Amino acid sequence: MRLLEDKILRYGKVYPGNVLKVDSFLNHQVDVPLIAALAQEIYQHYKDCAVTKILTIEASGILLAGMTAQLFHVPMLFAKKSAAKNMSDEVFTAKVRSFTHGNDYTMVVSKEYLCRDDKVLIVDDFLADGNALKGLTEIVKEAGAQTVGAGIAIEKGFQKGGDRLREEGLRIFSLAIIDSMTEGGISFRSDI
Amino acid sequence: MRLLEDKILRYGKVYPGNVLKVDSFLNHQVDVPLIAALAQEIYQHYKDCAVTKILTIEASGILLAGMTAQLFHVPMLFAKKSAAKNMSDEVFTAKVRSFTHGNDYTMVVSKEYLCRDDKVLIVDDFLADGNALKGLTEIVKEAGAQTVGAGIAIEKGFQKGGDRLREEGLRIFSLAIIDSMTEGGISFRSDI
Repeated sequence: MRLLEDKILRYGKVYPGNVLKVDSFLNHQVDVPLIAALAQEIYQHYKDCAVTKILTIEASGILLAGMTAQLFHVPMLFAKKSAAKNMSDEVFTAKVRSFTHGNDYTMVVSKEYLCRDDKVLIVDDFLADGNALKGLTEIVKEAGAQTVGAGIAIEKGFQKGGDRLREEGLRIFSLAIIDSMTEGGISFRSDI
Repeated sequence: MRLLEDKILRYGKVYPGNVLKVDSFLNHQVDVPLIAALAQEIYQHYKDCAVTKILTIEASGILLAGMTAQLFHVPMLFAKKSAAKNMSDEVFTAKVRSFTHGNDYTMVVSKEYLCRDDKVLIVDDFLADGNALKGLTEIVKEAGAQTVGAGIAIEKGFQKGGDRLREEGLRIFSLAIIDSMTEGGISFRSDI
């Protein structure tokens, strides 16, 4: 998606360790009209899939997931990174390694909000090693529900998480796939 | 706001320890049209205040903050609960005690995204002891910017955090203020 690629080229910053800083418009300060446009693209891609629920993981994917849910007229559900006092004990869980924070965490979803009739579209702002996305698909599977696919803002194509999950049969639609990035430049996969 | 009060009465559940569970529509599974309506109310309340930025804290306030920002045509900025690898070292911080999780954490905002010209509207889904809200006002102050006020979905009026901050001069607009809650019933403050 040209709009997103242009934003990345203009405002994204590459740091050592494969770190892409896009926190001026995506995951700290947020350009809301951009997020609305991304949601619209994801909706157009999956609109015929009878989606019943949008699933994401806190925190930075929540706005994109919510705006996508609004277009589908379905609820948005966000997995939590730890069980809060106000959650029921009946939960689905998946263990995940975070690339951004360099630690392990358990994602948690209340059993009340996913059922076997659900057709789930997973939405997130980033896909790198694919651990969060894989964890979310595991939770959908635990619920006996179906993952229709995933809608992602930025995929780091060179980290192969997305390609691995595609090989396992997951449908993934990423709005910008970065094939390589250095402090000198960023290049995108062109076949999308 | 009647729509929100009705939702709380219909779907909210009260548990011992002053825990209000509204995770079927607000902070786990999310009723997106409801959030859009809350954002609209907050916008109507503050629309003449020349707001330049919406500030919240991850995670569950992000959708409400984003949808409010969309109406104001300004960026949304969410404070993080810990510094991520992809954040700059130049940050504003405030230490906060979490009522929901029963722990302390440090909220972090990059200095790049708040400046002394900003007129900041703080938006969050919950106000209880007021610690998160107070932390956000401290960050705005550190930046030399101005807090125009706060827009809150649900305030637990009986926990007094909101009233204390009002006494300190903060303008707070809460869409539902709970004056008392027991497993038998919930009552709202009527003068809003």
